[in-house]
Amino acid sequence: MTDFPVVEFQDRLERAQKKMATDGFDAILLTTEAEVRYFTGFRTLFWHSPTRPWFVILPQSGAPIAVIPAIGADLMGRTWVKDIRTWPSPRGIDEGVSLLVEALAPFNQIGLPMGEESSLRMGLTDFRAVEAAISGHFNDCSALIKSLRMIKSDAEVAIIRRICDIGSRTFARVPELAAIGDGLDQVFRRFKIALLETGAEDVPYLVGGAGQGGYGDVISPPTATPLADGDVLMLDTGASLKGYFCDFDRNFAIGHAHAEAVSAHAKLWDVTERGLETARAGVRCCDLFAAMNKGLGGGSDVGRIGHGLGMQLTEWPSIAAHDTTVLQAGMVMTLEPSLMIDATRMMVAEENILITEGAPVLLTQRVARELPVI
Amino acid sequence: MTDFPVVEFQDRLERAQKKMATDGFDAILLTTEAEVRYFTGFRTLFWHSPTRPWFVILPQSGAPIAVIPAIGADLMGRTWVKDIRTWPSPRGIDEGVSLLVEALAPFNQIGLPMGEESSLRMGLTDFRAVEAAISGHFNDCSALIKSLRMIKSDAEVAIIRRICDIGSRTFARVPELAAIGDGLDQVFRRFKIALLETGAEDVPYLVGGAGQGGYGDVISPPTATPLADGDVLMLDTGASLKGYFCDFDRNFAIGHAHAEAVSAHAKLWDVTERGLETARAGVRCCDLFAAMNKGLGGGSDVGRIGHGLGMQLTEWPSIAAHDTTVLQAGMVMTLEPSLMIDATRMMVAEENILITEGAPVLLTQRVARELPVI
Repeated sequence: MTDFPVVEFQDRLERAQKKMATDGFDAILLTTEAEVRYFTGFRTLFWHSPTRPWFVILPQSGAPIAVIPAIGADLMGRTWVKDIRTWPSPRGIDEGVSLLVEALAPFNQIGLPMGEESSLRMGLTDFRAVEAAISGHFNDCSALIKSLRMIKSDAEVAIIRRICDIGSRTFARVPELAAIGDGLDQVFRRFKIALLETGAEDVPYLVGGAGQGGYGDVISPPTATPLADGDVLMLDTGASLKGYFCDFDRNFAIGHAHAEAVSAHAKLWDVTERGLETARAGVRCCDLFAAMNKGLGGGSDVGRIGHGLGMQLTEWPSIAAHDTTVLQAGMVMTLEPSLMIDATRMMVAEENILITEGAPVLLTQRVARELPVI
Repeated sequence: MTDFPVVEFQDRLERAQKKMATDGFDAILLTTEAEVRYFTGFRTLFWHSPTRPWFVILPQSGAPIAVIPAIGADLMGRTWVKDIRTWPSPRGIDEGVSLLVEALAPFNQIGLPMGEESSLRMGLTDFRAVEAAISGHFNDCSALIKSLRMIKSDAEVAIIRRICDIGSRTFARVPELAAIGDGLDQVFRRFKIALLETGAEDVPYLVGGAGQGGYGDVISPPTATPLADGDVLMLDTGASLKGYFCDFDRNFAIGHAHAEAVSAHAKLWDVTERGLETARAGVRCCDLFAAMNKGLGGGSDVGRIGHGLGMQLTEWPSIAAHDTTVLQAGMVMTLEPSLMIDATRMMVAEENILITEGAPVLLTQRVARELPVI
């Protein structure tokens, strides 16, 4: 009844429990969407409502325990989780706290993701109340969760491959979606519609920019400014299928291409090519960064030139100087070099790949070296 | 350069600072998307990436301070915030911690949303490091933030009115989007496309269900099961415009309507009508709940029959027995009664309204009492 067969979740839990034994965790407490979904298969957009907290406990041995609002009992009941404890939420007091305290009572060392890229999806007041009421202690288990989620199963890769393919086929339609005079917001809207028409289930993320020969930043919502001859249009999408993301961008010159944009595009292509030659199991992220960064000469202030990808738009690890994570077969990564053309204009290129023992598998349709003109 | 003129943000800050003085907060620390956007105008989908934390500090007097990753400096620079402190993120260590400690140094009593509906969007390890390094103390300021955000300005209401209107016009198109034999997932996709075509900027939320005379739950993603004669199709959307949501649903009988579905729809209509007669400034949410609940006789396990609406799909307050919040002019609310038709089938109705001193203003096109058949 979920996106994967039960054996997928059994395997995830088993790998978690082995590491929990090694790392000394008696249980793990999860409060966040991706983590709860990873171990249970519980997928819903209802997380958009901040009203209700959701909890899942993974014991070092035995089955997961869901401590959730009653409104989710039906959907959770269709996953492989059988121990489902609910309260009628919202009720203004005791939003799962007493149930959580009871469920955590048997455990001493309790893992909670507290490290990089983590957040706590419950009120800190309630968290402190739980912490004070139990005899056990919370310790960071971010590394454990990260080590599991970074390596995608074949079933996960199959979904990511499909959404990347949907992204590639949609980017191929951009020439019919954008022309001189179209507002950037219009182009965004058409592109989202095209993604859905091509098979995406959702388009949670679409950013981009347009400007003469390059653009200013890569996280802004679109303005109504019409595309002009000589603009570079960039669209960067995280479309999703069954809760898994693609994350890549494409650049298009509108009308004609400025020389500096053509040059930047070719340079980024070469840097990505170096990434494709370097990225494979056994290579550290910082070494992949070094190999790609040589060709960038400065780069931008984005902070990294690629990252993990899967249930979230961005996941660990980072292709960055500080990240010593060793690439392993089954990781899905973006290669995302960016550079400043001058003080105010930048360009970003992005492809999605599957790491293997040999050459990486491109999940996106590799862009041409020459900046396309539309 | 943002969705509102600077005076809107000045007013929000001024109201916050008055309350901070009353409540004894020297500053407030914000880590979450809606709160950061509310006070700065910083709107980006980039929050989908969990990699980087973002911080805004509101001092009791003076201007806001943004402590953010360098990748956001350009966009934040286009808001009214002038004190922008950045670090190159991600860098693996000190993800804003030392900048935050420095920025918080002058303050003793520091507010942080820690109560109902709050979360902490930064690693708990880093939060504890900040807490240990400063001389000040964090205390819950959820009530303060809630009291501000609950009352919408005219400019906010104007946007919500537009997205509600887009929602209503899109629901009017459902007869051409859904027919016997169509998979529910197909209908969802078409409805999302129709929302975008009609003017929505994004469709972050679409849930629903279909079943003979009623449906099983209201938070599941759609299956490919084809619509059958006698099904009730329900679509519930949180579409957005400039970062503001509508949140309402509509029910449609496919082919023909079962008597129990017709009856449930009329009952929910009557309950909503009672809500429209009761909801106005000065009435407590629990009293509105009581007035509507009388007609429901039991209801479902959703936990409430309406809620606030605005920058998030759901906001405070809740129309529920426990919520004693007094309605005030300028609040935007959903009326969302639901009932169980029998042990496994439910129905939900939802309208969005603006609270005034008199009768509420309907922001959605009021549904007909009779269940529409398509």
